[in-house]
Amino acid sequence: MAKKFTEKHEVMFYECDVTGKLTLPMVLNIVINTSESQSEALARGSHYINSLGLGWVITQHEMRVSRLPKAGETIAVTTAATTYNKYFCYRDFWIHDAEGKECVAITSTFVLMDLTTRKMVSVPFEVIEPYESEKITKLQRGTKMLPKTTGESRPYRVRFNDIDGNQHVNNARYLDWMVDCLDYDFLTSHQPTVVNIRFDKELNYSEMIDSQWGFVPEIAETISHHQIYSGETLCAEANISWQ
Amino acid sequence: MAKKFTEKHEVMFYECDVTGKLTLPMVLNIVINTSESQSEALARGSHYINSLGLGWVITQHEMRVSRLPKAGETIAVTTAATTYNKYFCYRDFWIHDAEGKECVAITSTFVLMDLTTRKMVSVPFEVIEPYESEKITKLQRGTKMLPKTTGESRPYRVRFNDIDGNQHVNNARYLDWMVDCLDYDFLTSHQPTVVNIRFDKELNYSEMIDSQWGFVPEIAETISHHQIYSGETLCAEANISWQ
Repeated sequence: MAKKFTEKHEVMFYECDVTGKLTLPMVLNIVINTSESQSEALARGSHYINSLGLGWVITQHEMRVSRLPKAGETIAVTTAATTYNKYFCYRDFWIHDAEGKECVAITSTFVLMDLTTRKMVSVPFEVIEPYESEKITKLQRGTKMLPKTTGESRPYRVRFNDIDGNQHVNNARYLDWMVDCLDYDFLTSHQPTVVNIRFDKELNYSEMIDSQWGFVPEIAETISHHQIYSGETLCAEANISWQ
Repeated sequence: MAKKFTEKHEVMFYECDVTGKLTLPMVLNIVINTSESQSEALARGSHYINSLGLGWVITQHEMRVSRLPKAGETIAVTTAATTYNKYFCYRDFWIHDAEGKECVAITSTFVLMDLTTRKMVSVPFEVIEPYESEKITKLQRGTKMLPKTTGESRPYRVRFNDIDGNQHVNNARYLDWMVDCLDYDFLTSHQPTVVNIRFDKELNYSEMIDSQWGFVPEIAETISHHQIYSGETLCAEANISWQ
């Protein structure tokens, strides 16, 4: 069993939207902060990874949302680097409220990138060892994206504060650009229940992106479909189920 | 002496920019979170204020920055509602690092607004009493803005996540739109030392704003001048000193 790591977090008002509940991008930020804390605690922080000429890249998050915590709540954020194979590391996250009820569960896929060649590399044993992840041989295939619908699009520019200390656009920003396209009335009257987001290409400072969106037709559920394009290049894609 | 209130805060990676240091807008968010905590602790939280048909509005922040804390640091955020007169409440904030050294000091001006008429009202004694603020008769005049310089401008749209639980654009966003206009190279090679920001008019969801900026000429210091306009209306103005 992979080592679990838990830390408490107080939900700040500025992590919440107009409904007073945690935003989806902030859920990602908070859980990633916890995975970084675990890595630091196991002497595998970004300083160590960078010293090997490597960096972690997140390729997918699959989130199940039971309830988005409110401003002022103290939540427990737990993570474990569950399994890995030659190229992919799978990490789970859970957010629980003060009563121990699960609010959010996330499965994420990480890969290691060579910082010089910008190419994926196989996972060195010394990097993964302290997490006590289970080695698996097969690939865990993430849930597939639903077919794209015709929809609308809105332009965004990568801002200075979108770039984090790893010199990349913070992954949570993609989700920000996706959700922001939906209607104010829709967002204040619907709750996200499942989010499946895949990251395909990194973005650079001052790049212009197009956030395209639409609703998946002819199904009983309300599912929005999102794609982030830089020119002709698909950079990220997501499906979000709402109720 | 006004009651002091302190809470600890761990600086999260997503509160920092590419340099790994806390952003100026996040400094404002963090201190405001602490003033809300104090108000809750004194049974004068937003629920109580709203029940009187009132809401707090911030009109000015004057910040002195010695050092912006880094991701992972635990800081102590202290506040006291120092003084007040008929219409204005003056609140101080201090951020100290783990060694007790002052990183940031802020003096802020708050007014109470009638939520129906959207007009400023005089401060009821029952609202201010528990803070043990000193009543003063004179007006504390904030530092004046330096004369505007000709400069450039960049458009921004008020996004869904710019609106906070108080149904207003979070004040910190104005500072975000201001700082974002400056050059990447400038921002990664300069430190802010003094920030004087004044808020003149609230903004609404989906409004387009123009963030105008320039540098104050013919002085030894490097001071940037910023204005946020919605059409012809000046909504916020700031001077930021850099070194």
